[in-house]
Amino acid sequence: MTKNLKELARDIKLFSVNLASSAESLRNEALSAVKAALWADREVIYNENRIDLEAGSQSGLPDPILKRLRFDEAKLQSVLDGIDELIALPDPLGRLLLRREMDTDLTLERITCPIGVIGVIFESRPDALVQIATLCLKSGNCALMKGGSEAMHTNRILYRIIFEAACSCGIDPHFLTLLESRSQIDELLDCEGSIDLLIPRGSNEFVSYIMDHTKIPVMGHASGVCHVYVGPSANVSQMVPVVLDSKLQYVVVCNAAETLLVHESIAPVFLPALLEGLGDQELEIRGDVKAAQIIPCTPAADEDFGSEFADRILAVKIVSSTKEAIDHINRYGSAHTDAILTEDPAEAATFFSLVDSASVMHNCSTRFADGFRYGFGAEVGISTGKLHARGPVGLEGLTTYKYLVHGKGQIVAPYSSGKKKFHFRDL
Amino acid sequence: MTKNLKELARDIKLFSVNLASSAESLRNEALSAVKAALWADREVIYNENRIDLEAGSQSGLPDPILKRLRFDEAKLQSVLDGIDELIALPDPLGRLLLRREMDTDLTLERITCPIGVIGVIFESRPDALVQIATLCLKSGNCALMKGGSEAMHTNRILYRIIFEAACSCGIDPHFLTLLESRSQIDELLDCEGSIDLLIPRGSNEFVSYIMDHTKIPVMGHASGVCHVYVGPSANVSQMVPVVLDSKLQYVVVCNAAETLLVHESIAPVFLPALLEGLGDQELEIRGDVKAAQIIPCTPAADEDFGSEFADRILAVKIVSSTKEAIDHINRYGSAHTDAILTEDPAEAATFFSLVDSASVMHNCSTRFADGFRYGFGAEVGISTGKLHARGPVGLEGLTTYKYLVHGKGQIVAPYSSGKKKFHFRDL
Repeated sequence: MTKNLKELARDIKLFSVNLASSAESLRNEALSAVKAALWADREVIYNENRIDLEAGSQSGLPDPILKRLRFDEAKLQSVLDGIDELIALPDPLGRLLLRREMDTDLTLERITCPIGVIGVIFESRPDALVQIATLCLKSGNCALMKGGSEAMHTNRILYRIIFEAACSCGIDPHFLTLLESRSQIDELLDCEGSIDLLIPRGSNEFVSYIMDHTKIPVMGHASGVCHVYVGPSANVSQMVPVVLDSKLQYVVVCNAAETLLVHESIAPVFLPALLEGLGDQELEIRGDVKAAQIIPCTPAADEDFGSEFADRILAVKIVSSTKEAIDHINRYGSAHTDAILTEDPAEAATFFSLVDSASVMHNCSTRFADGFRYGFGAEVGISTGKLHARGPVGLEGLTTYKYLVHGKGQIVAPYSSGKKKFHFRDL
Repeated sequence: MTKNLKELARDIKLFSVNLASSAESLRNEALSAVKAALWADREVIYNENRIDLEAGSQSGLPDPILKRLRFDEAKLQSVLDGIDELIALPDPLGRLLLRREMDTDLTLERITCPIGVIGVIFESRPDALVQIATLCLKSGNCALMKGGSEAMHTNRILYRIIFEAACSCGIDPHFLTLLESRSQIDELLDCEGSIDLLIPRGSNEFVSYIMDHTKIPVMGHASGVCHVYVGPSANVSQMVPVVLDSKLQYVVVCNAAETLLVHESIAPVFLPALLEGLGDQELEIRGDVKAAQIIPCTPAADEDFGSEFADRILAVKIVSSTKEAIDHINRYGSAHTDAILTEDPAEAATFFSLVDSASVMHNCSTRFADGFRYGFGAEVGISTGKLHARGPVGLEGLTTYKYLVHGKGQIVAPYSSGKKKFHFRDL
């Protein structure tokens, strides 16, 4: 590569309008070709992944990271299923969102279009590369991707397969770029004006670093501090498994629960039932003073509330009202996903209305907050920001819209002076 | 105010969920009360405005700024009309965007809600205070507003009237805060986590300063470099007025044209017709070499292309193809508003598809790119960003959504192991 990254990104930006206006059939055909090529070359992929896994194991990468790094038949099948779902989804581009007659022969349209150029920076998981590359292709966005060095061999082969398969169908090579040098992260963060959106996927520290070092809009979440609140009327035997699933089904992910809030009236029944339901599963409970009067637990420190343990640890607090639970969540949460367990529909409605989070659950696990589980086909990530896409982000979050105005020589002057008036009429 | 701004913003943030869940009838009633109070107290408003105007005049504020600062009967009428339109608009909150059965007794909903807390920083125009405060009220957002010191008396009286009228209907005082000290701008920029969105309205330097000094998302535009491209088949007599309106109808605004691109085949006819149409209106034309061979003009420097003159200056460049025009716009424009003048529908379609701007016009003035003219009732501003709202931003741009999941004790484990499957079905 003789060009520096800024020049390359500028070229991709100028090209991106062409991919944006490509036919749906071409994008879907390319996706099919990508799927077929990934399957055909699966043994090569597994081999390259083994090189990464062995190097990672020798360099002492912790087990959860090695687990994410693994790209086996199950992971391949999951990304291939994702591609099938993507192909089946309607074209997210060119959708007419609004068509309005402003005045005779003056028509306003709002139609969807891609965001343009997406910078993706991710750690460990090579399946994220396939997901994001195919989501970008379906949505007509160009992508620059930088994966973690621990997945270098896997990322490189996945990239080559996707790139060659798409290009063989007639997609321009500008559509997908893999960056391999660590120093290119900071260069990428500096490509304001050419890169429209950054999507970082990785640890909290990593995402925070990205958010703090760029002027490019960032979509994602730095932390997932999710709560489960047990209301006075919760069905104890049914809801104990929900708490355990929220906390323990996969502890390192962002939609796992970190804090359990329990109404004081149900705590004497619920907490012992929780311990019983736990059985021999390992879980450290850090309880406040009132919780400690009911079950044996580690005393909770102030900073345990609002912490993302990403581990087999649960902070527990007894509250005296639903309002106190809601205030606690809005104060200490990360606006990601929070759940209420109650048989009282009015209490659930209040919780839904007043909890300021991207996903709010009633009588089910926080772990459902996920693009696949919401039926979005695939997800780019989960956003805790309130601008643009919120919560699990699928194809729609990779699009924006533009306004098109069709006229016959109209000028503003007579409308401005009051001589002519608009007669808005949606068509 | 004994609390510092950060604590105040934190309080407002925690309160904001209550305004978010307020009844539409209450918000509309408050808007009616605001409208009535503004009308009843109009003489007081004009008097306070005169104090600002006199001070501004004495301190030598330039005429365009004094013009923006003026709050007279016409401006009042315009904001009162805006409030009427706002009241008539459907409630932007609580709209069901999606309702999907994920599995039996497991339902996903996506409903609209306010963004939360909006920080508004504006220069000069006191009517912006009324527009933004009423847009925020209708959309259930709390607002912290900082106006320019040159409009201090007008802003203060407008704020007091709006605040008291809304509170008299039962709206909580947290909904609207006026900041008066200049040092509070930097404090406001530092309220990440409590303020969800910043909307700056003012000069390019001002907006750029805001964008560069905060981690809070900013909606707006730092510049408006709008283009008009005259294609080979343009109707000369009809389109000369469109170019003149785009450039001259109001030169200081962001949707005024700065550069005229003319196809070489029509330039020898179009440019002289433009000069003729100009008559005795003042306009400095800065033309490239080819333009200078056709009409008398100042030689354009490289930096004239991509400049926002905000003055009676127009850069003119002759291009040899529509593609060259599109490339020029995507390279030098600010993705705000760009127009094509052509009788060829295919050429217009290509332009619409490939010009990467928030608003794209065909055979009409760039000056139509405006929330009022698009029928949005009022506008918060125009966004050149591609995330969240784009182009003129009305009520919808002040809302986001949340996902609500209703279950009956479902946990993720059986879906994760494959024992249970989702059956997505939109309801």
